[in-house]
Amino acid sequence: MSKNPKELLRSLFEAAVASAQPALCLPPFLPKKVEGKLIVIGAGKASAAMAKAVEDNYEGELKGLVVTRYGYNVPCEKIEIIEAAHPVPDTASVTAGRRILEYVKDLGKDDTVLCLISGGGSALMSLPPENMSLEDLQAINKELLSCGATINEMNCVRRNLSQISGGRLAKAIHPAKIINLLISDVPEDEPCNIASGPTVQDKTNLSDALAIIERYKISLPDSAKKYLDSKALREEAVDISGVDISTHLIATPQLALEAAASICRKEGYPTYILGDSIEGEAADVATVIAGISKQIANKSQPFSYPCVLLSGGETTVTLKGDGRGGRNVEFLLSFALAMNGQEGVYALAGDTDGVDGIEEIAGAICDPSTISRAWQKGINPRKSLENNDGHGFFEALGDSVITGPTRTNVNDFRAILINGDAS
Amino acid sequence: MSKNPKELLRSLFEAAVASAQPALCLPPFLPKKVEGKLIVIGAGKASAAMAKAVEDNYEGELKGLVVTRYGYNVPCEKIEIIEAAHPVPDTASVTAGRRILEYVKDLGKDDTVLCLISGGGSALMSLPPENMSLEDLQAINKELLSCGATINEMNCVRRNLSQISGGRLAKAIHPAKIINLLISDVPEDEPCNIASGPTVQDKTNLSDALAIIERYKISLPDSAKKYLDSKALREEAVDISGVDISTHLIATPQLALEAAASICRKEGYPTYILGDSIEGEAADVATVIAGISKQIANKSQPFSYPCVLLSGGETTVTLKGDGRGGRNVEFLLSFALAMNGQEGVYALAGDTDGVDGIEEIAGAICDPSTISRAWQKGINPRKSLENNDGHGFFEALGDSVITGPTRTNVNDFRAILINGDAS
Repeated sequence: MSKNPKELLRSLFEAAVASAQPALCLPPFLPKKVEGKLIVIGAGKASAAMAKAVEDNYEGELKGLVVTRYGYNVPCEKIEIIEAAHPVPDTASVTAGRRILEYVKDLGKDDTVLCLISGGGSALMSLPPENMSLEDLQAINKELLSCGATINEMNCVRRNLSQISGGRLAKAIHPAKIINLLISDVPEDEPCNIASGPTVQDKTNLSDALAIIERYKISLPDSAKKYLDSKALREEAVDISGVDISTHLIATPQLALEAAASICRKEGYPTYILGDSIEGEAADVATVIAGISKQIANKSQPFSYPCVLLSGGETTVTLKGDGRGGRNVEFLLSFALAMNGQEGVYALAGDTDGVDGIEEIAGAICDPSTISRAWQKGINPRKSLENNDGHGFFEALGDSVITGPTRTNVNDFRAILINGDAS
Repeated sequence: MSKNPKELLRSLFEAAVASAQPALCLPPFLPKKVEGKLIVIGAGKASAAMAKAVEDNYEGELKGLVVTRYGYNVPCEKIEIIEAAHPVPDTASVTAGRRILEYVKDLGKDDTVLCLISGGGSALMSLPPENMSLEDLQAINKELLSCGATINEMNCVRRNLSQISGGRLAKAIHPAKIINLLISDVPEDEPCNIASGPTVQDKTNLSDALAIIERYKISLPDSAKKYLDSKALREEAVDISGVDISTHLIATPQLALEAAASICRKEGYPTYILGDSIEGEAADVATVIAGISKQIANKSQPFSYPCVLLSGGETTVTLKGDGRGGRNVEFLLSFALAMNGQEGVYALAGDTDGVDGIEEIAGAICDPSTISRAWQKGINPRKSLENNDGHGFFEALGDSVITGPTRTNVNDFRAILINGDAS
């Protein structure tokens, strides 16, 4: 245990982010040199960085077309990078979808398409069904969000109202081979849910989507009704079983947690991964994890201390105030309040994409003195939380964690170090 | 593993409730026979049941006066039971406070006062400082709830604005001896927080309360200002170090969880107590515990399955709908939705007082078929959750857990059984 607690926590976060950096995690999955042409396509917040890692490491010839988020560009020489909007798609997203679909047609069966897919890809590469507009899709999306559908049901409808998602891009690539390199930001790392799975087999089809629309009585715009009525639904299932596809998850929330766990254990801390997809309101996720931390510190259950608890996944924040906040600092401030200065407990929460909320701050660190130091500076911690001002709070204490945009994303990262009395 | 999953979960809940039943947990802590008089006093939701357990088991003479909640009476022969309002005190609460204070004065040093204290006691036995009214206290309480104070800070102010709480009743009992039998419904089982600690040493005093009032700029009614101004604050610290007090926690959330854990282990299930005081919005506590359950079922982390996860503590529900709900069924419905039918996962959530919310239903059980059975009955599970209709939901499925009021309370009880694929 050579590092001090805050240094240790920072090194865990760095290890988690590094595990998802395309420059480090992509090269081992690159093919040596393919027979025919190598075509690189991709969509997602990490796809430009992934494209660069391909260019830097592939030995043969290649060309490509990849779409990423505005500001997430990484200059490449052979692969064209275009930019579009996220999370709400814009006309550049539709252009990207159309161009990429065009780009992969007319390939031969000796050719290989390397698909670089990461979170955000479905907004960045959008192509609604013929005669439907982006606005139509957004209207359906809005209804989906309020109808009581589960996230899996919403994803099913979204995937099936597209010319690209749910394996439709793979169908267009046929007869060329497909190598998928995926960076996951979704629970359970289901390939069909990462960027709506453009190049993997979907387990659902248009008639599943229709059943969900009926179950929740979603009112459809006329264009969607026409589309759904005009299709022979059963024949519409996207069957890509004939396509030669190999799929690799090159970075996932779980792999990021395992990377951090490996550092912890080297430092002598027993380490427990609570979950790679913990969800819920950030402030409440914090009180639960604080409850577990107190049980450890006070009763040595369910683990004895010293130890480290890791978790990933994406929390939510219901805005009540107008402070400068983000999911991770909201979590951390609520955690610090719940621990109420308990000795020996330290925590870090950060977004692996380096941007927690709208600030160029990845997250923050708290320690047993966090709450009392805030009061010394005239800051009322609970008021800061109520005002969703996590960044304002931790910046004032000098406890922000700043990495700059990492151009990759395996969701939130949380680490709790419990030294107990021993610290 | 002889019991089926739902039977096992019910038996765990029964064991947890039984561990807190005065008839079972109180007798071992009764004195054999005291020298002088034995006087029984008490306040709390469990205090009538505790009084009955004393009458049924104490060998010598006794008399007493105890206050419980309307409807929580248990007829006794020698101990008078009075009833008052909870959670908002009424004039009967003030009468109870005054009568109990009167009841214990003029005792001798050979006499013993047996104090039966449980949750709810501070509302049921209320005596504001002289010249302050219940309304004054309620006005301060309302400001406390919205000012950003922590629960410990709020409790400090509440304890110190009273003629009974924070050890003041113990001071009145002196020179008689005190035996405290406590049933805890508070985090960390701090005796001074159980019913505001009328008969235990308080670590805070009136000047601490004043500092909190100043920190949060609580505006005080004139009566409170006069009270606080007129007292020589430093002399006001309630020092009861000269009183002969022995204190026993006869039932706690942790002991209830341990009782359930012992059943689980006998049935062959490794069992982990996540925390005895898990707090947060019920639906979000559920998504976190679901996240941990999925990690176990899918990745055998941080525990391998089969196993059981237990937790206690009191969650909260922010009402959005007008359904028939309670903290425990809100938790369970959110949990079932988050698990989305995952095979081999079963859960029970119940209030150990037998009353979850306003219904005479303690809680409910869910299994992998819960969500699909609801749909078969035409119930939209997410809409039920949004409408806070947990009782309506589980009653329709025949999965309510009904015990009747248990007349004790060690808070919420949650058990998750993870059989994984093996089930």
